[in-house]
Amino acid sequence: MMTREFAKAGAFRGNNPADVVQSCDITFTCVSDSVAVRDVVFGNQGVLQGISKGKCYVEMSTVDEETVQDVADAVMARGGTFLEAPVCGSRVPALEGMLTILTSGDRKLYDDCFSCFEAMGRKSFYLGNEVGTATRMKLIHNMILGTVMASLAEGMALAEKVGLDQEDLHEVLCLGALNCPTINHKSQAIMNQRFDTHFPLQHQQKDLRLVLSMGDSVEQPLYLAAASNELYKKARRLGMSESDISAVYKATVS
Amino acid sequence: MMTREFAKAGAFRGNNPADVVQSCDITFTCVSDSVAVRDVVFGNQGVLQGISKGKCYVEMSTVDEETVQDVADAVMARGGTFLEAPVCGSRVPALEGMLTILTSGDRKLYDDCFSCFEAMGRKSFYLGNEVGTATRMKLIHNMILGTVMASLAEGMALAEKVGLDQEDLHEVLCLGALNCPTINHKSQAIMNQRFDTHFPLQHQQKDLRLVLSMGDSVEQPLYLAAASNELYKKARRLGMSESDISAVYKATVS
Amino acid sequence: MMTREFAKAGAFRGNNPADVVQSCDITFTCVSDSVAVRDVVFGNQGVLQGISKGKCYVEMSTVDEETVQDVADAVMARGGTFLEAPVCGSRVPALEGMLTILTSGDRKLYDDCFSCFEAMGRKSFYLGNEVGTATRMKLIHNMILGTVMASLAEGMALAEKVGLDQEDLHEVLCLGALNCPTINHKSQAIMNQRFDTHFPLQHQQKDLRLVLSMGDSVEQPLYLAAASNELYKKARRLGMSESDISAVYKATVS
Amino acid sequence: MMTREFAKAGAFRGNNPADVVQSCDITFTCVSDSVAVRDVVFGNQGVLQGISKGKCYVEMSTVDEETVQDVADAVMARGGTFLEAPVCGSRVPALEGMLTILTSGDRKLYDDCFSCFEAMGRKSFYLGNEVGTATRMKLIHNMILGTVMASLAEGMALAEKVGLDQEDLHEVLCLGALNCPTINHKSQAIMNQRFDTHFPLQHQQKDLRLVLSMGDSVEQPLYLAAASNELYKKARRLGMSESDISAVYKATVS
Repeated sequence: MMTREFAKAGAFRGNNPADVVQSCDITFTCVSDSVAVRDVVFGNQGVLQGISKGKCYVEMSTVDEETVQDVADAVMARGGTFLEAPVCGSRVPALEGMLTILTSGDRKLYDDCFSCFEAMGRKSFYLGNEVGTATRMKLIHNMILGTVMASLAEGMALAEKVGLDQEDLHEVLCLGALNCPTINHKSQAIMNQRFDTHFPLQHQQKDLRLVLSMGDSVEQPLYLAAASNELYKKARRLGMSESDISAVYKATVS
Repeated sequence: MMTREFAKAGAFRGNNPADVVQSCDITFTCVSDSVAVRDVVFGNQGVLQGISKGKCYVEMSTVDEETVQDVADAVMARGGTFLEAPVCGSRVPALEGMLTILTSGDRKLYDDCFSCFEAMGRKSFYLGNEVGTATRMKLIHNMILGTVMASLAEGMALAEKVGLDQEDLHEVLCLGALNCPTINHKSQAIMNQRFDTHFPLQHQQKDLRLVLSMGDSVEQPLYLAAASNELYKKARRLGMSESDISAVYKATVS
Repeated sequence: MMTREFAKAGAFRGNNPADVVQSCDITFTCVSDSVAVRDVVFGNQGVLQGISKGKCYVEMSTVDEETVQDVADAVMARGGTFLEAPVCGSRVPALEGMLTILTSGDRKLYDDCFSCFEAMGRKSFYLGNEVGTATRMKLIHNMILGTVMASLAEGMALAEKVGLDQEDLHEVLCLGALNCPTINHKSQAIMNQRFDTHFPLQHQQKDLRLVLSMGDSVEQPLYLAAASNELYKKARRLGMSESDISAVYKATVS
Repeated sequence: MMTREFAKAGAFRGNNPADVVQSCDITFTCVSDSVAVRDVVFGNQGVLQGISKGKCYVEMSTVDEETVQDVADAVMARGGTFLEAPVCGSRVPALEGMLTILTSGDRKLYDDCFSCFEAMGRKSFYLGNEVGTATRMKLIHNMILGTVMASLAEGMALAEKVGLDQEDLHEVLCLGALNCPTINHKSQAIMNQRFDTHFPLQHQQKDLRLVLSMGDSVEQPLYLAAASNELYKKARRLGMSESDISAVYKATVS
């Protein structure tokens, strides 16, 4: 359907990933998770079967560091060139072209993709040639996001308990030094008890788990991230896995 | 010095708090802490000795709920009218007239002060007639502030540990949904290891202690605020009490 | 009733605290909390009115450091001698004479009371002449108790979630290096969902609050005690204030 | 060397794992970690090559649930019978025959091994036929152990900060309801600053990580275990990985 419209506009439509890779110099992929990435890359008629010397492959899906390394190794073993390019931002920034693209891997490939990244997002970063670097940056970003969200939920819960109007707290926050889209939109979501999914709570919790494991590997204590992770687990237990991250509020009031 | 200049411009300069209150319809006070407030109000030739029926008193200092209640009771017992009006925002917003003024107490007095509040800050809120309400709002605001700050510190510490450039993380944060003055300025402070005091760390820790005690009184668990409080204690132990709140970073890397 | 039986056995029965103090060299008090202590000591016909030079007063109630200091100051100001002697152990150890008595204050008074303490408990400690020392020791003991209890609750909750029999976990714990009355009895309480009060949950939470405040005053971070405190708050919210501390289990499964 | 002595006493000494398995009805293995287990089982001339219909294999090493499942699957696929039997208790209980043996898997094999387990330890448990059950029990036991240890460390640190004698706290604890070998020996270790390894700190931290991941999979929040895990990470950062778990004390005072 979508691809049909692209085809009408002149695009080539491959029959499978291998087919696409064979007919393009640079292939971009962005799918939902590690399982999907492994399927697209290593599956029958997958990306890997189309890779040969000179082919360039850009992985924009957000996956764990191990998966991105496996994909990079496989692509490079066949003579291909690899760049990871996960994206910061959820539904709304995507629609508005305001995504931030974090990349690491082959520098020349980044330069070649630069204009494409400009078209897709607001800004792109090249963070170094080591595969995994961009994934680490994204996880740290999401660790802070998840903790800010959980702290806001605690504040909204306490406000209600002590007889304050949550809308007043929302306004006070939006007038001060914490005013940002996350604080603004998520406090409204809590206030209105509307947890429509922008960023699914279970993905947030998964990111916290991955970042805690990263902290583990470098011996960095992360007391707040660890406490946040437990709150998100609690929210999952309350059935909020597929709701928005703002539904962590439920864990603070149950 | 300062008062001399006001006097030159035509202002009346009282010899002591009682003197000022006697010669004005509405008196505003803003001093550093509860001890100073008690001194100004209950001391010899203090505010209380100037209060009589019809006098209005506005307490803009940030103090604990008990002190503000004591002051309110004393003022009202002498026939005065009381409004508490603590302020959100630190040094820079104050200089730029961007403070948020939170008030509770006498509604008519709030209305009478409205134009003054407009001149002092960006926006004022009347949160209800119950004394203590504005103080509670301010504490919840600062609870979120303290946790966001501590989470940012954890993120910056982890970034460095896993070989990322803290400046890159700063930029990524400023391009995304968490972009706010706190995230922006405090990540720079950490990056540059410059902890010049905007909001003293020991005041932040005191506010966390007060807010946890508030959570205690209404049986609201606050896992993140509790963990943050311990991190700030750790920072105090490292000698950072009088540095900026961003020095909580020291507690994450020591 | 009780006093009547003591009287039958030859004891003197005073009409009020002052009366008792006047007729005895050493008076021991053990009442429920700070409010009761203040009433008995500072109230009409209270302890203080019976104190004169040479009178000895032993406070065995568990109260906060401020109250114990106030009582000590008042007793000593009238020429009396003071010893604080709070007790570790709840209902069962008390019945079995297995309490531990922690004391601080006047050394000679401790020596004079030694045989009495032997009769009341299993062992007594003289911790120094500074008033407040025994109270601090007791609070630290109870901090560890509260955290052990909360950790056991987490373990029992997790056991059930992953399909293990809580009774098996109870047995495994009782066979290993963690085997102690607390682990043994409290795991049974959870297993049987019987939270009959030995040590009331709200007192445990109050002790955690006091010990966190003590940690605050000496800049000692206490991450586990802080997290435990929030769990007990949660249990209070679930209506378990007057149940046994083992009811913190409810906070881990709700 | 050791095996030579066994051989002198009449034991058969195999040249490799396969050799041993082929000549025995039941083979017990206990090696240090998952990597060693995989080597012994799946390696060249490994256990697997000796397994045939009717052979029984008992895995006493402590490994993660995935490894134990892989070994069980491989043994059973070749017609063998499998029992997992991890052990609770460290160096001293092992020397004294006071270990607790936790088993799950084939019931008949457990019955056949019963007398052997009696000889090796103090008590054995059969927890069910599902592979992984015994491992889960062991991890929950160690989660509680790790948190008790960390709470004790916080208490000892606070005691010192407020001017109490750590030896007094040790004695008070040993006289009360928390008296158990862990509290007794570990408080002495801290008091004497002697962290000779009974249970290596890095293994404790690994167990906490595994148990948090287990809690994750069943949506069980574990606030205390999560905070403990961060403290142990901190201790690892301070270079205490190979010291005893009591060295987590270093993380509370640094």
